[in-house]
Amino acid sequence: MMSFADSLLSHVQNKGNPCLIGLDYHEGRLPDFVRNDLARNPSPEGYRAALSGFFRRIIAAVAPLVPAVKPQISLLESMTWVGAQVFMDVVAAAREHGLVVIADAKRGDIASSAVGYAKAFLGGAEGPDFAQGYRADAMTVNPFLGRDTLDPYLDACRALGKGVFVLVRTSNKGSVETQNIEVGDSRTPMFAVYARMVDEIGASLIGEKGYSSVGAVVGATFPDEASQLRALMPRAIFLVPGYGAQGATADDVARNFNADGLGAIVNASRSVTYGFERSDISPGAYDRTVRDNVLRMAGDIAKGIERRLRRE
Amino acid sequence: MMSFADSLLSHVQNKGNPCLIGLDYHEGRLPDFVRNDLARNPSPEGYRAALSGFFRRIIAAVAPLVPAVKPQISLLESMTWVGAQVFMDVVAAAREHGLVVIADAKRGDIASSAVGYAKAFLGGAEGPDFAQGYRADAMTVNPFLGRDTLDPYLDACRALGKGVFVLVRTSNKGSVETQNIEVGDSRTPMFAVYARMVDEIGASLIGEKGYSSVGAVVGATFPDEASQLRALMPRAIFLVPGYGAQGATADDVARNFNADGLGAIVNASRSVTYGFERSDISPGAYDRTVRDNVLRMAGDIAKGIERRLRRE
Repeated sequence: MMSFADSLLSHVQNKGNPCLIGLDYHEGRLPDFVRNDLARNPSPEGYRAALSGFFRRIIAAVAPLVPAVKPQISLLESMTWVGAQVFMDVVAAAREHGLVVIADAKRGDIASSAVGYAKAFLGGAEGPDFAQGYRADAMTVNPFLGRDTLDPYLDACRALGKGVFVLVRTSNKGSVETQNIEVGDSRTPMFAVYARMVDEIGASLIGEKGYSSVGAVVGATFPDEASQLRALMPRAIFLVPGYGAQGATADDVARNFNADGLGAIVNASRSVTYGFERSDISPGAYDRTVRDNVLRMAGDIAKGIERRLRRE
Repeated sequence: MMSFADSLLSHVQNKGNPCLIGLDYHEGRLPDFVRNDLARNPSPEGYRAALSGFFRRIIAAVAPLVPAVKPQISLLESMTWVGAQVFMDVVAAAREHGLVVIADAKRGDIASSAVGYAKAFLGGAEGPDFAQGYRADAMTVNPFLGRDTLDPYLDACRALGKGVFVLVRTSNKGSVETQNIEVGDSRTPMFAVYARMVDEIGASLIGEKGYSSVGAVVGATFPDEASQLRALMPRAIFLVPGYGAQGATADDVARNFNADGLGAIVNASRSVTYGFERSDISPGAYDRTVRDNVLRMAGDIAKGIERRLRRE
């Protein structure tokens, strides 16, 4: 069984870029052609068809270009069980297109409950098909409850070849209060405690390419911290949000890569999938716009990494 | 509109006890009569009927006795959309029985995504019924991403009379590494940083009984910290897990109450709903056992609080 880290990095190398497209549901930003579908048939079946269709369209447009997608479950959850059906459809469609699927769920609970989240997003449950979870390739998790609460996800990494990305340094401004506060005698920032935890729990899950299937979420919005975090977690793949709509540049992002040009994947969500000018855009023009947005992002990121590697 | 805190405390006073019953799905511990239903009809409809029926049975048994229930979504999520339907049924049934419903979801994400979780668990979304979320009275949230990420939940507290319980000191052993680490010049434990945050963000949501609709999750498994946490968050209602299956006693739990005998609700999950001896228990005997377990818990907790108040 190939490790998650090896699989993800193979996809990155095959596609020639480290871009990850976030698949988010933002009701107020949908193009009219999706909004009209929802209005025309506001039944559970109608909502599922319209929204799964929207995401399938994005997946088909980006699949030839990028290694991975990151469906976000948060905004789908307000649609209760219909949102769950859409999330299920999205994960399945992305896997059918050969994309690596990272479920952005940011779950965290004591171990007896975390078992449920690991089964939900990574698989390993028994029973009928609908009871076997969403079966993504990896998921994001919240480490605040402590390392014992991460064990169920690590078990799935080992048993099923899955991956996990642990929140270490999030991209929002308010994270400074809880993540930069200085701790202990050495007065290191709190995020360093989590970074060491990620390095330690990931040590037994290193693949053939030298990277662990336990990765870290490291926002690009605090670029000055990137080299410190890289030093603390040399073998972790960084999932880097913050590029695009949140304001980080390609040069900010590039600081999260290792000297081998690997070690990070860069996410963009709204700037790719909602980056169109007029809400009455046609479906065909929407597909072309998403494709153009991805190509622009991939080119920009590649140049950032190139500049970074030249300087070293 | 009555505040969540006033509503919860009225329920506590009316029922004469502060017990909260956790509604958890533990596949391996189900009584045979539920397990047989699942085996007989392993379709989505069959699963929904069997599991919603099981939880409705518990809700009917506990509703005359306790003020509130805490349905846990984690283990239901492995059943994808069917788990979501069951969760929806559980919240609705508990509200129909006049119980306060605290959704145990422990969600946390940057604000643009946290909006989705607030809508999912507290309501406020528009659209058809299935798209308006689960509509519990309150939910648990994870503060690791910072206080800006809690705003969407606070908005729901203000606009809809809902409540939120912020994780401050969790009941698992591994929490010591991330929550007790000493921070800043004053070398206070990290949990005190979160406790102050809860006190500050809750200040604008104080109800007529003097308590805030922003509460805190404080595990009973570290009783020596209770007085420190009470002093930091005098107006927060503590949601106290750890009694029963996790090992905390009534005297441990009692330290989380204020001198007015209020200020905390105490959760028990497995020890109440899976606290039967033989898996072939009949449905009628199961109902009586759950009732007996609740009465035993309520009596035990009441004595603990009494001893505590006598000592002061």
